[in-house]
Amino acid sequence: MHDPAAHPALPTILDVEAAGRRLEGVVRQTPLLEAPRHALPAIAGTGRLVVKAEPLQLTGSFKLRGAYNAVAALPESLRRRGVVAASSGNHAQGVAAAAAMFGIPAAIVMPADAPAAKREGTLGWGAEIVAYDRFGEDREAIVARLVAERGHVPIHGYDDADVIAGQGTCGLEIAEGLARSGIAPDLAVIPASGGGLLAGCALALQDRYPGLPVWAAEPEAFDDHRRSFAAGQRVGAPGGSSVCDALLAPRPGALTFAVNRTRVAGSTGVDDDDALAAMAWAFRVLKLVVEPGGAAALAALLSGRIDWRDRTVVVVCSGGNVDPAVFRRAIAFD
Amino acid sequence: MHDPAAHPALPTILDVEAAGRRLEGVVRQTPLLEAPRHALPAIAGTGRLVVKAEPLQLTGSFKLRGAYNAVAALPESLRRRGVVAASSGNHAQGVAAAAAMFGIPAAIVMPADAPAAKREGTLGWGAEIVAYDRFGEDREAIVARLVAERGHVPIHGYDDADVIAGQGTCGLEIAEGLARSGIAPDLAVIPASGGGLLAGCALALQDRYPGLPVWAAEPEAFDDHRRSFAAGQRVGAPGGSSVCDALLAPRPGALTFAVNRTRVAGSTGVDDDDALAAMAWAFRVLKLVVEPGGAAALAALLSGRIDWRDRTVVVVCSGGNVDPAVFRRAIAFD
Repeated sequence: MHDPAAHPALPTILDVEAAGRRLEGVVRQTPLLEAPRHALPAIAGTGRLVVKAEPLQLTGSFKLRGAYNAVAALPESLRRRGVVAASSGNHAQGVAAAAAMFGIPAAIVMPADAPAAKREGTLGWGAEIVAYDRFGEDREAIVARLVAERGHVPIHGYDDADVIAGQGTCGLEIAEGLARSGIAPDLAVIPASGGGLLAGCALALQDRYPGLPVWAAEPEAFDDHRRSFAAGQRVGAPGGSSVCDALLAPRPGALTFAVNRTRVAGSTGVDDDDALAAMAWAFRVLKLVVEPGGAAALAALLSGRIDWRDRTVVVVCSGGNVDPAVFRRAIAFD
Repeated sequence: MHDPAAHPALPTILDVEAAGRRLEGVVRQTPLLEAPRHALPAIAGTGRLVVKAEPLQLTGSFKLRGAYNAVAALPESLRRRGVVAASSGNHAQGVAAAAAMFGIPAAIVMPADAPAAKREGTLGWGAEIVAYDRFGEDREAIVARLVAERGHVPIHGYDDADVIAGQGTCGLEIAEGLARSGIAPDLAVIPASGGGLLAGCALALQDRYPGLPVWAAEPEAFDDHRRSFAAGQRVGAPGGSSVCDALLAPRPGALTFAVNRTRVAGSTGVDDDDALAAMAWAFRVLKLVVEPGGAAALAALLSGRIDWRDRTVVVVCSGGNVDPAVFRRAIAFD
């Protein structure tokens, strides 16, 4: 269903800024929370850590930004046919909420083992869920069938210029918030799955802070960005198990990688314990509920996998849609 | 140590506005989070629920507002003698952080059974903790001794005009945030212990929204506000056990009651299950960590103890300093 040739032009900062105007009054401007110095690990030295709190976004993750921007960009004649998306749950809720705001139907193709919090959130916004077995079924084929049978318009989770531009509004808000606080960042770290948030934020942040190093963080077993940066082309990761259910994309998107390969300094892997410990830290220090994948970038910093001694770092916590059982396990880490 | 006669004048909206100017750039402007309609209980009808998220305040609760305002209001000659406060943990962290910002020492008289999160937060801000047995020792006597021996200035947790004015900045921010969102409230609900947040917010909100009904919520066993409103004078509650460790003040303050008796519509009690269920709701819907006492007002609404059918309600979640074990118990409720 996804055809990169249909979007030959890469998104630019102008697209991100246009998305910012479109999303005004629709998405929440989530806060930037600087951690008290005494709550930072010794490896920080005199460094500072500022967290963009996207779990507080209306759908519990940043995904509403790109989904709304993409649905809003559709011609009315297409949009009224409804939308379909494949998602493990955060893009699902973003598309479901955007569709509800426009009063159109949404069908979400979601793994049968997605977290209950994500299923319930998606149903709460009025979308229909089409469950599939992510080990045995091809979700793209299911999406294609829904497009053919119902005429729904597919909204890709990351490999779409409008989606990338929408996610970039997170970066615009970071730059505005840092400017208000008089803080200049030395480094930004962002979770990566398909790379949409990473690409959008890199566009926005490097426009506002030319030359700013932007790093990605991803699960160790799904380190397709790290491998692709090393290979100079999109390659897959071995895969396996990860508690970061939101970060299991098999390889970078075509559009996202075209943006990220020229902008992103590198990517680092985190393991389950890193992610759970970061969730516990966010619980204790920020009073913020973060899901495992949403905590990946924070985990890369707190675990010391990225060197940020004496530097001012901005990190995106990208979502908080986590089941109680996983959160209970995480906060036992502290 | 506390002498209401030293502060004969009740705080006014002018004091709250002066505190707002003093706290600018010092405290976080915490977000207002409107819950999605589908996440509201059926008893809400067409009502709307907007949450002021004070767990995201720098010290994990609103208490920094009043503590900083009171420390800032001291003449420099007094302030440099350092400060002392009695607190179960949230005022403790507020005073500790304010003292750290002014570079002066702080001693905190804290129950030996205070939550570890609160002890650690207080130590993190560099304060000294003087532990006492809240069933056998008189904390006011310990404060008086520290005043006499060290010359520290006592900062009362609620019965102080500067503290009340500082807490009122939470109400100012609510009014500003609602105005930005184009929302007019029909009702406000605020947790009460000594009544400082309640008094400050009532001053601010009823200035911006004349006649707005303001309700309090408190633990059933510590319903001293409800009893005092009924009696027309300050009386105590039976006491007992409550999971709401932040809301165990034995009776309303003199100054706070003088404000609240003319402004507050009433108070409702909540039980432990109400508070824990509200914490679970805030976890699931808002991705916000709320402590039991901080969730009391939210609990009064979600449990239906306050009738808010078809009304637009603003509620303060006042803090999020909660130990993992209690939070694990709470989110099992959902």
